[in-house]
Amino acid sequence: MRIPILKLYDCLLVSIQWELDDATALQFQEDLLQKIHETSANGVVIDITSIDFIDSFIAKVLGDVFSMSKLMGAKVVITGIQPAVAITLIELGISLDDVMTALDLEKGLEKLQQELGE
Amino acid sequence: MRIPILKLYDCLLVSIQWELDDATALQFQEDLLQKIHETSANGVVIDITSIDFIDSFIAKVLGDVFSMSKLMGAKVVITGIQPAVAITLIELGISLDDVMTALDLEKGLEKLQQELGE
Repeated sequence: MRIPILKLYDCLLVSIQWELDDATALQFQEDLLQKIHETSANGVVIDITSIDFIDSFIAKVLGDVFSMSKLMGAKVVITGIQPAVAITLIELGISLDDVMTALDLEKGLEKLQQELGE
Repeated sequence: MRIPILKLYDCLLVSIQWELDDATALQFQEDLLQKIHETSANGVVIDITSIDFIDSFIAKVLGDVFSMSKLMGAKVVITGIQPAVAITLIELGISLDDVMTALDLEKGLEKLQQELGE
């Protein structure tokens, strides 16, 4: 299973709507970085509204994806972090300090476009 | 495998990036109609840029999805139809007469918003 990555103007949109298994998460990491490279995207919005539980491996992979995307020059906005996911991320020390967050996809996209417009 | 459906304002966005098997196509049909119902979406953009071949079953399911979405009151735009896919659709008699088409996701979304704005 692979997660589709949509290109909309200079941003990439990803919606993770089902719990990720380890292989899918790693494949997603590779696909996203490849897509950033291919499309020269300036920003990425990752919506995880539907995820209400993540384990430590997935949390680490997600944390890595954010850092890697930033290294490649793309700003990342995460939207729809659920309470349990927020707890897991912080408890695992994945602070996402420099990652922007928003309530939903629309707000995330607006935030990103504001940020990119500056 | 299920295909994620993104909600952006009053539209739904779907990008089909890998060849569909029969079960996935049927699941997608069910998911999309359910999501139209849940979100009261006015429009749907389905991007099939990455699909360069479809068989008769998938073509029929896609044709059905378009008709069903319209019945539910959502306008459908298909984007990125590849030459071989266009040939298959027409040869199978799936004319998509009332379905709007566009070159890519951006143009599809613009077309849909124009149409909905009228």
